[in-house]
Amino acid sequence: MSYDPDNPFAKILRGEAPCVKVCETEEVIVFMDLMPQSDGHVLVVPKEAAATLFELSDAGAQASIRVVKRVALAVRAALAPDGVFVGQFNGRAAGQTVAHVHFHVIPRWVDQPLRMHARVVAEVAELEALAQRIRAHLHLDGEARG
Amino acid sequence: MSYDPDNPFAKILRGEAPCVKVCETEEVIVFMDLMPQSDGHVLVVPKEAAATLFELSDAGAQASIRVVKRVALAVRAALAPDGVFVGQFNGRAAGQTVAHVHFHVIPRWVDQPLRMHARVVAEVAELEALAQRIRAHLHLDGEARG
Repeated sequence: MSYDPDNPFAKILRGEAPCVKVCETEEVIVFMDLMPQSDGHVLVVPKEAAATLFELSDAGAQASIRVVKRVALAVRAALAPDGVFVGQFNGRAAGQTVAHVHFHVIPRWVDQPLRMHARVVAEVAELEALAQRIRAHLHLDGEARG
Repeated sequence: MSYDPDNPFAKILRGEAPCVKVCETEEVIVFMDLMPQSDGHVLVVPKEAAATLFELSDAGAQASIRVVKRVALAVRAALAPDGVFVGQFNGRAAGQTVAHVHFHVIPRWVDQPLRMHARVVAEVAELEALAQRIRAHLHLDGEARG
């Protein structure tokens, strides 16, 4: 999958498209998935112009997983799911729909199957409310453990 | 999910249970999933006694994703799949079946649905043959990009 600078996440990174932002660091931006597979589905997106994990630098991957862990902790603290799924898809055959490397953080509940990926667009107000709850539990600095 | 020092991966780490090993670093061990969801399904397992990503140190998470990237590159080079799925499941509701934090690296082919997780045990000889092919393409040192 080659890198297209006009992919939707590149547009968000350049401020040319909106997103419901959770947080941002020097290396990554974190926002709510617009077509969530469950309530609280968050994306951690490295700022590097890399289509997949294959092209991402070690530094970019390591900055990402550090934030992924903190987002997973915050999602757990905010929404009390039964589990948290972390997924990173490379290539269409693996479920990748946007050609800019990203990590999914998806809360899971025992009795709720995941909604289909990239199908139904959520209400922005609902996403904002979830982002606010997650943000309230997010600690980006220092070592974070649950 | 609390940490049980008698979980199957802890036994592998202590050398009390066998595995089809791909490689090992100071921080992680990498071996073939015994009940693979596709041919070439590899697990990257931090050596820390952590049940989930929530309890894993930043250093452990960052060492893991560095190796995950290299394993994904090696799986792609060795097996030429259409995509590579990286998954990290926290809690039973998210698909976690062994209570020791681990990352799945699963090659995907367009026309092959995933087999069910943790259901059918593979032939060790087949896993050894796959591990050998993956190992031949694995470069653990330096910066690696595809």
